[in-house]
Amino acid sequence: MDPALRALGEFGLIARIRAAVGPHAEGALRGIGDDAAVLAGGPGPLLATVDMLLEGVHFRREWGRPRDLGWKTLAVNVSDIAAMGGTPLFALLALGVPPAAIGLEEVEAVLGGLQEAAARFGVGLVGGDTCRSASGLVLSLTLLGRAPAAGAVLRSGGRPGDAVWLTGQVGGSAAGLLALERGLRPGAAWPATLPRPEWLGRGEELELRAALELHLRPRPRLAAGQALAGIATAMLDVSDGIASDAGHLSRESGVALRLEAARVPIHPAARVLGRLLARDPLELALQGGEDYELLFTGPADAGPRLAAAVPDLPVTRIGVAEAGEAGVRLRFADGREEPLQVGFDHFRS
Amino acid sequence: MDPALRALGEFGLIARIRAAVGPHAEGALRGIGDDAAVLAGGPGPLLATVDMLLEGVHFRREWGRPRDLGWKTLAVNVSDIAAMGGTPLFALLALGVPPAAIGLEEVEAVLGGLQEAAARFGVGLVGGDTCRSASGLVLSLTLLGRAPAAGAVLRSGGRPGDAVWLTGQVGGSAAGLLALERGLRPGAAWPATLPRPEWLGRGEELELRAALELHLRPRPRLAAGQALAGIATAMLDVSDGIASDAGHLSRESGVALRLEAARVPIHPAARVLGRLLARDPLELALQGGEDYELLFTGPADAGPRLAAAVPDLPVTRIGVAEAGEAGVRLRFADGREEPLQVGFDHFRS
Repeated sequence: MDPALRALGEFGLIARIRAAVGPHAEGALRGIGDDAAVLAGGPGPLLATVDMLLEGVHFRREWGRPRDLGWKTLAVNVSDIAAMGGTPLFALLALGVPPAAIGLEEVEAVLGGLQEAAARFGVGLVGGDTCRSASGLVLSLTLLGRAPAAGAVLRSGGRPGDAVWLTGQVGGSAAGLLALERGLRPGAAWPATLPRPEWLGRGEELELRAALELHLRPRPRLAAGQALAGIATAMLDVSDGIASDAGHLSRESGVALRLEAARVPIHPAARVLGRLLARDPLELALQGGEDYELLFTGPADAGPRLAAAVPDLPVTRIGVAEAGEAGVRLRFADGREEPLQVGFDHFRS
Repeated sequence: MDPALRALGEFGLIARIRAAVGPHAEGALRGIGDDAAVLAGGPGPLLATVDMLLEGVHFRREWGRPRDLGWKTLAVNVSDIAAMGGTPLFALLALGVPPAAIGLEEVEAVLGGLQEAAARFGVGLVGGDTCRSASGLVLSLTLLGRAPAAGAVLRSGGRPGDAVWLTGQVGGSAAGLLALERGLRPGAAWPATLPRPEWLGRGEELELRAALELHLRPRPRLAAGQALAGIATAMLDVSDGIASDAGHLSRESGVALRLEAARVPIHPAARVLGRLLARDPLELALQGGEDYELLFTGPADAGPRLAAAVPDLPVTRIGVAEAGEAGVRLRFADGREEPLQVGFDHFRS
């Protein structure tokens, strides 16, 4: 066991987190240090979400940069609040540490990255639970926020006739994950485990390295989500992949979705990785997940309003919502159509 | 992998949880099924707490009764809200399932126990996260509640001159844990791994079996906690053990605590187990933890008010708070005094 972690102990670690967080998050009448956090009430409904990252499932520690892991733990939850159009406020962290496998320095780097994201997104860490883990590192984060004045944007508000829109590009995070799994690391030389064909120049390498960042240190679309409240009729973040997430929206809204394959904005890294490892870039874009872009429905003529509301981010119309049985169909440029199958399930893969 | 769990899949399991929970928890404008739960605001501050149970650290699945595990996951969090004098309202569950090791039936029993506790304590399960775990079962529960009108009872309100009080008895859960570790199981015959001396009769066996229940299915002191708000100056629940928890209260309140060894209400099972395995019952009572009784300070003359507020539960005066450096001292009947050391730390044990 790491001697520094052992010397510090569980309560020493909590004291250190508390000192790093500072005495008060805004609106926290009582933060870390009691049985429960005491949080000021406020106008409008509260939002609450939890996302858990497990070592060996969601991440591998040998991918490096523990700060990114802390960042990501908060960021993926911020993405859920963003998808409601809300404002994140307070976080609680349940942290399971395998003391035989991990040192104090690494734990503090994880917490430092979490604090960095908390500062960036205006979140106060107000409580948590710290314990030993018998296996890998466990990070379970609960995020509380405030719904927008116009009301939270649910998954269930999509209507026939709406268009389906997407912020940014997809498939980049999946490309980054596959590159990580094949040995590419941020800041390290090109690995022997990954082919390096003639066509792959400096530009392609930079795209792949940018994709590593997308996967390890995702940027939730918080400002965009807030700006879209009042325009979007239904919204969610692309965490499981468009195939899966569009299915959620379809079922919750009770509409059929038809997506145009040619309109899906594929991240350049997905094209590079696809060519490198003989994978279909469109499949990475639709099945990959963890892009944390926002997928939403809205009035078909909302284009100009969207451009004004989200000026610094491409928003692409990728399909339509129609009356009919819930489900997602994909239409190709040649007019062919097929159901968009879901590729990933935690208990099936 | 369990074929039923595989066939159901991650989203099938979520759908099943959602169906079991029902469409709405009271006050939940939107529960399971969106990016975040949407919860009605209300008067007064909000309470938020999280407690995580990890297989191999907090429990072993071979101890049996997965329903109890679900119950306990919620109950230990209710205990934290109770220790603030509050009312629990909403829960979010992050659930990590090792599909190679656990079947659908067992997962559903865990969730059934959680729902049983939720119904018992008036809590609505409004959200969560479900994923595969590469190692053991992971249960991380966040509980939100409402602070009492008189204000949340913090750990920091203890004052010199206050008495120190404790609800119920302590050491029973630790006795139950040791008996479990030595092979005693609810509803099963006495195991060969545990001695069975002449003096241990039917009465002693029943005490030990009751202690198993205390450990596996703790009963948080919710009504007592609410009744003590307005009387207690500082309060917490005994989860880590009196030695540790009294230390927390002492440090947060900035008072010295002196506890009387002879006044500590030791659970009868701790005496039986102590005799059986040559362990000091007082040590089990002070170091054991997981009793989920309430430890609090209050005016020295509060005895009659306490008896009226908590009529169906013994409340014992076990010490005093004094001016001086934070710390806990234990005084024995012969007048000897020593610092009460903390026996357990997650990263040290």
